[in-house]
Amino acid sequence: MVRASARDEDVLFAARVSTKGEQSLADVDAEAGRSAGLINYLMRDRHGSPFEHTSMTFYVQAPIFVFREFMRHRIASYNEESGRYRELRPVFYVPGPERALVQQGKPGAYEFVAGSEAQHSLVIAQTRRACEVAYEAYQRMLEEGVAREVARIVLPLTTYSSMYVTVNARSLMNFLSLRTKDSEARFPSYPQREIEMCAELMEQGWASLMPLTHAAFVQNGRVAP
Amino acid sequence: MVRASARDEDVLFAARVSTKGEQSLADVDAEAGRSAGLINYLMRDRHGSPFEHTSMTFYVQAPIFVFREFMRHRIASYNEESGRYRELRPVFYVPGPERALVQQGKPGAYEFVAGSEAQHSLVIAQTRRACEVAYEAYQRMLEEGVAREVARIVLPLTTYSSMYVTVNARSLMNFLSLRTKDSEARFPSYPQREIEMCAELMEQGWASLMPLTHAAFVQNGRVAP
Amino acid sequence: MVRASARDEDVLFAARVSTKGEQSLADVDAEAGRSAGLINYLMRDRHGSPFEHTSMTFYVQAPIFVFREFMRHRIASYNEESGRYRELRPVFYVPGPERALVQQGKPGAYEFVAGSEAQHSLVIAQTRRACEVAYEAYQRMLEEGVAREVARIVLPLTTYSSMYVTVNARSLMNFLSLRTKDSEARFPSYPQREIEMCAELMEQGWASLMPLTHAAFVQNGRVAP
Amino acid sequence: MVRASARDEDVLFAARVSTKGEQSLADVDAEAGRSAGLINYLMRDRHGSPFEHTSMTFYVQAPIFVFREFMRHRIASYNEESGRYRELRPVFYVPGPERALVQQGKPGAYEFVAGSEAQHSLVIAQTRRACEVAYEAYQRMLEEGVAREVARIVLPLTTYSSMYVTVNARSLMNFLSLRTKDSEARFPSYPQREIEMCAELMEQGWASLMPLTHAAFVQNGRVAP
Repeated sequence: MVRASARDEDVLFAARVSTKGEQSLADVDAEAGRSAGLINYLMRDRHGSPFEHTSMTFYVQAPIFVFREFMRHRIASYNEESGRYRELRPVFYVPGPERALVQQGKPGAYEFVAGSEAQHSLVIAQTRRACEVAYEAYQRMLEEGVAREVARIVLPLTTYSSMYVTVNARSLMNFLSLRTKDSEARFPSYPQREIEMCAELMEQGWASLMPLTHAAFVQNGRVAP
Repeated sequence: MVRASARDEDVLFAARVSTKGEQSLADVDAEAGRSAGLINYLMRDRHGSPFEHTSMTFYVQAPIFVFREFMRHRIASYNEESGRYRELRPVFYVPGPERALVQQGKPGAYEFVAGSEAQHSLVIAQTRRACEVAYEAYQRMLEEGVAREVARIVLPLTTYSSMYVTVNARSLMNFLSLRTKDSEARFPSYPQREIEMCAELMEQGWASLMPLTHAAFVQNGRVAP
Repeated sequence: MVRASARDEDVLFAARVSTKGEQSLADVDAEAGRSAGLINYLMRDRHGSPFEHTSMTFYVQAPIFVFREFMRHRIASYNEESGRYRELRPVFYVPGPERALVQQGKPGAYEFVAGSEAQHSLVIAQTRRACEVAYEAYQRMLEEGVAREVARIVLPLTTYSSMYVTVNARSLMNFLSLRTKDSEARFPSYPQREIEMCAELMEQGWASLMPLTHAAFVQNGRVAP
Repeated sequence: MVRASARDEDVLFAARVSTKGEQSLADVDAEAGRSAGLINYLMRDRHGSPFEHTSMTFYVQAPIFVFREFMRHRIASYNEESGRYRELRPVFYVPGPERALVQQGKPGAYEFVAGSEAQHSLVIAQTRRACEVAYEAYQRMLEEGVAREVARIVLPLTTYSSMYVTVNARSLMNFLSLRTKDSEARFPSYPQREIEMCAELMEQGWASLMPLTHAAFVQNGRVAP
C-alpha cells in the first residue's frame, strides 16, 4: 500500500451526519473504539455509503491473467504498465508446488485438488518453454524494429505486469467478497487462486488500518455493505 | 476539508507506471517540483486516470436546492443529514444584497444582473415569510406526534442541510468545470451562483493541496481531463 | 415506462458467453422459457453482470423529497425538470388518509402506524397552507422580475417534479432492494412510503418485461445480484 | 450489434424535460428531424446527460490485448468468454500486410509507418510460431488433466476472445473519442490500430441508429459531451 486515508473513524462521522448533522464534525477527530456497535450495525443492515469516505492505493505486481479479472471491478482507479510504451521484462509466473492443479465440480463452483508430481513437472516445463519461445519471438521482432505494441502480442498471459489501484473501503469489500473463498461467507465465491493471493494481501493491509470495520465484515459473512 | 490524501506527487507515480513499471515506485516519495511539464501534458491531452489516485473529503453546509444539483455528480461519495432521522433546524438561506437577481438570455446560458432595491427587499421579505410559515407548520405537526419524514415535506428548498462528500481530483475537476463560470473556460458553464460559491471554496482547498495540478487545470481551459 | 430493451433472454446470451463463447450468439434469439434454472442460479450466487445488458427508461412524477432519495442511486441516468429553466406549477403532494403518520422504533428501522383523524386533518391543513403561502411568495417574486432560480427557493419539498430515469435490471434490483419493504427480504429495508410507491410501480413494469428474472429476485430474498 | 434501444428521439424528450416538464411526454413519440439544432447545442456545450437514455449491446470478437484496453472503460457492462470455464480455441490474430509496423515519436503520441516486407514476414512467422508452441503447451497440459485456468496462462495476448458489451450513447462517444484517431478531433488520440478497428465498426452501427447525434459528435470535434 503506497497511500492510504482510511480509518474506522472515517465511517463514524459519515454515518452520524444522518442523525446529528453539523454536530458530526465533533466525530471527525473522535476515536472509534467505543463505536464498534455502530459499525457492526451498518455492516449488518448494509448501509454501505459511510464506508466510502476512505481511500487506499495499492501497488500490485501480478500476471496479466490476474489483471484481467481485477479490472472487471469498475469502482476503482487503475494505472498500469504499458506494453505500448515500455519494453516488457521477461518475468513470468510459473505455478509452484503448492498450486492445486486439478479442478472438480461445475463451472461457477470449481474445487481444486493437488496435482501429481508428473502434472507439476509438466506445468513447470510447458510454462517455461512457452514463455521462452514467446519472449524470444518478442525480442526478435523488437530487434528488427517492429513496434512494441505489435511485438508484445505474442507474450503469454502469465507475463507479470504492475499497476496502482485505488479503492475505497466499500469497493474493497466488494472485491474481497468475490475474490476470496471462505467457508464463513454468506455468498460463496470460487476465485482463481492467483487473484485470491492478491486479495489476501490487500485484506491484511486494510485490516490493519480499519480493524473494527474488518472485524464487522468478517462477522457478517463477508457481504459487501 | 476534513480529510485528504491528495498531492501532485500522486499523479506522477500513477502516470509513470505506464512507461517505467515497477521503477515508478521510486516516484512515490519523489517531489513533484520538477514534473510540472508531465502534469501539464496529462491535462492538455486529457489523460485523466492518473488524477484519480487521490481523495478529498469535504464537509458542506448549503441549502437543499444546492444539494440537489450537487448530487447529480455521480462519481462521488455522499452522506447527508436526514430529515427522517433528525428534527431539522430553522436555518435558511436568504439571498443577500450581492446576489444578482435578474436573469437575461436563454435557458442554458443565463446571465444575471443586479436587482433593484425593491426586488431585494421583496426577496428577503418573501423568503423569510415563507420559511417562517413553513417552519411553524413543521413544528405544529411534530408537536402533535406526526413523523419527522412526513412533517418535513413542507420545508422549503432553501433549508440548510449538511453533508460529507468525498471525491478524487479528476471528479473534482469535472465538478468545477461545470459549477464555476470562468471566461477562460474552453466550454462555457452557467451554474447557479449558490453552488458556484461552494465550488469556489472547494477549489481553493484543492489548489493548496495540489498546486501544480490546479495550475495545469486553469491553464488548459478548465477542462476536466 | 417510455422505452425498454429488457427481456429474460438478454440475461442468457450474456451468461452463456462465459462457457460457450461465440456459440452464445445462438442464444440471442432463443426463448428464455427453459432457462429459469440458469437465471435462478445467477441470482442466488450473485453473478450480477449478465443482468446489466438491459435498459428501461421510466417517466417519474413525484415530490422533490422523493427525487432527493432517488438520485442517491448513482448507477442510473437522470434528466429532470428544472426550476431554473421553467416556472414550476402549483402541484403539491398532500399525504392522504391511507398514509401512516406515526413513527415508532429506532433510526434506520422505523415502523409506521396510522395517525388519528386529528393528525390527518392537521397534516392536510398545514401542508396546504404552507404550500399556498410558498407559492404566493414564488409568484410575487416572479411578477416583480426576480429570476426563477431565486424565487423557487421558497417552494416546499413536497412540490411535484418530473424526470426520466434509465436503469438496467441489475441497478433496478438494487433500487428495489433498498426502496421496498418486504418481510421476505433477506436484508431489511425501511424506505419512506412515498418512494416505495414509485418503486412498486417500477417493479410491476419490470416484472412484466422480465418475469423469470423477477421471480428469481423475489425467490432469493430480494437481494440485488 | 445484437440489441439496441437508441434513437435520436431519445435525446429529445430527456433534454426537454428540463424546460417542459411533463409536457416532454409529447416528445417521446415525436420525430427528431426538426431538432438537429437542439442536439447540436447539447453536444457543443457538453450537456451530456440527455445522451444516456439509450442502450446498445455489441458482440465483439477481438484479441485479448484489445479486450485489455476495452475493459478500462468503466461506464459499460461486460460479459466475456472465460478461460476458466471453457477450452479456448486456437484462433489467433496475426497482423496483416496493411498493419503499419514501425512506431515513431514519443509515448502518448506514436505515429506508425509501414513495415518492410522483411518485417512483415518476421511478424507473421514469429507470431505463428509463438502461438503454435503456446497452444501445444496448452493442449498437453489439458490432456494430462491440468485445470483449464492453469493451462491457459501460457496462451498469448493475441488469442481471440468474445464478449458482449452494453453502453449508452454518451459512454460510447467517450470510447470513440479515445479509441479512434481523427485529424478533426479537438483532443488528439493515438489508439492502437486493432482497438480502433473495433471502434470504427461500433461507430458505424451507432451512426445508423442515431444519425443526427453522430453528425453533431463529428461536427463538434469528437468530444464526448
